[in-house]
Amino acid sequence: LDDKKNIDSFIKKHPDRKVIVIQGQGYVGAVMSVVCANAITEEYAVLGVDLPNENNYWKIKSINEGIFPINADDPKIEQFYRNAMHKGNFYSTFDNYAYTLADVIIIDINLDVQINYSLNKDIKDYNVDMAAFKDAIQTISKFCKPEALILVESTVPPGTSEQIVFPILKNGLKERKVSSKKIRLGHSSERVMPGPDYIDSIQNFYRVYSGIDEESADATEDFLRTIISTDKYPLTRLSSTNATEISKVLENSYRAMNIAFMVEWTRFAEESGVNLFEIIDAIRMRPTHNNMMYPGIGVGGYCLTKDTLLAGWSRKKLFDSNASLSLSENSISINNKMPKYAFDFLILKYSKEVIGKDVLLLGVAYRGDVSDTRSSPVESFFNCCEEAGCNVIMHDPYVSFWEEKQIKVPKNLGEILKPGFDVVVITAGHSYYRSRKFIDHLMVVKPKIVYDTLGHLSEEDIHRLQRVSKVCVIGRDDLD
Amino acid sequence: LDDKKNIDSFIKKHPDRKVIVIQGQGYVGAVMSVVCANAITEEYAVLGVDLPNENNYWKIKSINEGIFPINADDPKIEQFYRNAMHKGNFYSTFDNYAYTLADVIIIDINLDVQINYSLNKDIKDYNVDMAAFKDAIQTISKFCKPEALILVESTVPPGTSEQIVFPILKNGLKERKVSSKKIRLGHSSERVMPGPDYIDSIQNFYRVYSGIDEESADATEDFLRTIISTDKYPLTRLSSTNATEISKVLENSYRAMNIAFMVEWTRFAEESGVNLFEIIDAIRMRPTHNNMMYPGIGVGGYCLTKDTLLAGWSRKKLFDSNASLSLSENSISINNKMPKYAFDFLILKYSKEVIGKDVLLLGVAYRGDVSDTRSSPVESFFNCCEEAGCNVIMHDPYVSFWEEKQIKVPKNLGEILKPGFDVVVITAGHSYYRSRKFIDHLMVVKPKIVYDTLGHLSEEDIHRLQRVSKVCVIGRDDLD
Repeated sequence: LDDKKNIDSFIKKHPDRKVIVIQGQGYVGAVMSVVCANAITEEYAVLGVDLPNENNYWKIKSINEGIFPINADDPKIEQFYRNAMHKGNFYSTFDNYAYTLADVIIIDINLDVQINYSLNKDIKDYNVDMAAFKDAIQTISKFCKPEALILVESTVPPGTSEQIVFPILKNGLKERKVSSKKIRLGHSSERVMPGPDYIDSIQNFYRVYSGIDEESADATEDFLRTIISTDKYPLTRLSSTNATEISKVLENSYRAMNIAFMVEWTRFAEESGVNLFEIIDAIRMRPTHNNMMYPGIGVGGYCLTKDTLLAGWSRKKLFDSNASLSLSENSISINNKMPKYAFDFLILKYSKEVIGKDVLLLGVAYRGDVSDTRSSPVESFFNCCEEAGCNVIMHDPYVSFWEEKQIKVPKNLGEILKPGFDVVVITAGHSYYRSRKFIDHLMVVKPKIVYDTLGHLSEEDIHRLQRVSKVCVIGRDDLD
Repeated sequence: LDDKKNIDSFIKKHPDRKVIVIQGQGYVGAVMSVVCANAITEEYAVLGVDLPNENNYWKIKSINEGIFPINADDPKIEQFYRNAMHKGNFYSTFDNYAYTLADVIIIDINLDVQINYSLNKDIKDYNVDMAAFKDAIQTISKFCKPEALILVESTVPPGTSEQIVFPILKNGLKERKVSSKKIRLGHSSERVMPGPDYIDSIQNFYRVYSGIDEESADATEDFLRTIISTDKYPLTRLSSTNATEISKVLENSYRAMNIAFMVEWTRFAEESGVNLFEIIDAIRMRPTHNNMMYPGIGVGGYCLTKDTLLAGWSRKKLFDSNASLSLSENSISINNKMPKYAFDFLILKYSKEVIGKDVLLLGVAYRGDVSDTRSSPVESFFNCCEEAGCNVIMHDPYVSFWEEKQIKVPKNLGEILKPGFDVVVITAGHSYYRSRKFIDHLMVVKPKIVYDTLGHLSEEDIHRLQRVSKVCVIGRDDLD
């Protein structure tokens, strides 16, 4: 697994450039790599490092062979990647030798939560296995320059930089008989949002940062200024790594809780025959209420489904508290049940016309116009349909293979959606599903039932479709 | 209780003016009355009606004798009131004869929730007693013109206009052998906010409205346009009275839940030694997170402490649902415990220096720069202090008598706050408590402990005060 020769020849091309190593080449790290390779005020030599295992080896290979491994809807990704390769300042490797050359090491590896759900989909218990994360830090400590800036970008349990990363780094250097006095450790969570603004969610967005000490915070700031448009999106320095770590999990918990809050009101709206969307639109005119969430099929993606639990784990394990973050954790449970509620509403209205019938799910990604299916709520909705004996098929213009379910997703709607089809369900907010072309297709097909689990259809389209189908929308019972 | 002569002579002064009757002359109705008497596009004759009982008789008298009954911090109140009296278009009465003359009858009466709390301050059970509200509607039905517009502004359990108000009105007219076909019933919740923008919270703010039918909605719109600056704050028509009724309790539940959410994070921040205020400031830079709430002593006032329960009651009693609004209702319980948590933090840090000592509470109103003490969280904090054997005294520049506790509140800080005082607690966000004059006073007095339960003090003032006192701030443990 020796890649030293390639690394050295990559570095030698521009020996004056500072070297950035990005540990982790996933949804965050790979994109962060091309952002660094297109830094605003400096030219860096960027080395993307990942483990040479089944999940990651192909990515490294793919990057070096000219194909960016993330299928994205943001045209800037391809442009940034091409530009980086053209300038010769991005290379990907599995060889830890890379760390020995780094001026800045950015940690962009996943920290998963192992969750056990009870039968009714409540969280029963959960754990954060820090082993792989600790290993990764240990690797850095074995190879890094003693004066490198180590920047944690991963979403971690609050307290991690101080209580876990720093001691490992110090210890590693000590074992190498190198002074650990010059170590600089910063923390600044990414706020990466896969989708059409993927690159901008790094380069053109607010950042919070901190350091384990003043020098570390300064070094972190200096670095971030080179890659982020800080004139438009000023950086915010917080007083400690605990503070920036909490800020990330708090902001995602806030979002998750605001989604969970709307779940019971969605049910109430359905019971009382109102259109919750028009109500929320009216409330959102108040500036203090303009972030109220809309009803939907559920929450997906990598962050909102678990970040709260990183905090809950930290509170117990790293800060020895007896208290939990119960309201916030309860939100995760509620959100986990959303697809089931969404399915129940359909059954409540049209049980006989759904049970055992053909059901087409439109979209398996966790949000509109992205290909990301991680923790997609559609999986749970899919399972509900199967349990009800439905024959479920799917479509998604962005996804050809659904990793989590290990199923192929056909792309040709015409072949699937035949006249008189039983139940069509909009499960992801892809723009295509409210295009003229698509609605016209539905008007021809005349499905028996069209169910919109997202409030994705326009009022006009609903009225059109009502002429040929029974139309049902989550959070509304004003349509019959 | 005959006031017919006075009413007739009031009306005769301007017989061409349309007559508005406002039922209820409390915190909403009295202010709505002067707004109507200063309508933007029309001159109305406004009759404020309330019951001739202990709580209300003095208000009616006071209004007619030239003293507006609400002590407000909004200079516009006095100006609107004076102007109305000057133009001779506001008169207050207890005589139901007023309803016979009304073109528009606005219902601004309270609908309280009777809540039983368990010992740990959780909601045990609650009920909404509709009897007085129904009586009030019945009174209207006995006297109103058959073509009057009846406009419900009170915050009511969703379903009230359709299931309670409309049937009572129809029945009342039927008993009078008058056709109920012309009845127009609208709903448009007030969003009145006592304080410096009292008048503007009616005249210059967004409104949602609806009617029991199309004509009712049109009539409601026509009327609202005459009193609200709808060019700047456009009206939103919703499809049903259920929808507008839900919108009010939903928006207040949203607010209450966002406050409750922050409670456990406040505790976590205190445990992990961070400053939650700086974290929230950083998060709020994201437009999607700019309404995150700050830590505090608790929630008070008439709305946020109970509106959710109107919805919960409605869901069960008016829509026969088995499900509750448990997340939202739980927020009310959590918020009810906030003052206790705020007190616990003080004890955790300084138990010996607090228990049995002199404690000064700065502010008893439920929010900054208002005199309103309804459901103020300070009451619960006060009780905690007394239970800890403290000698509690209070101060509030806006309140001279604390209704709920039936205690006089001294106005002269100099007499209370003597050098070496034990514990000073900022419990209401009055601007005075962060004025130069006040901080200078504290610097001279050198209290042993200064506790800010609101994050009211500036960073600079905290540093100054730390020179003479131990300073403790809710949601922070970074100050030692």
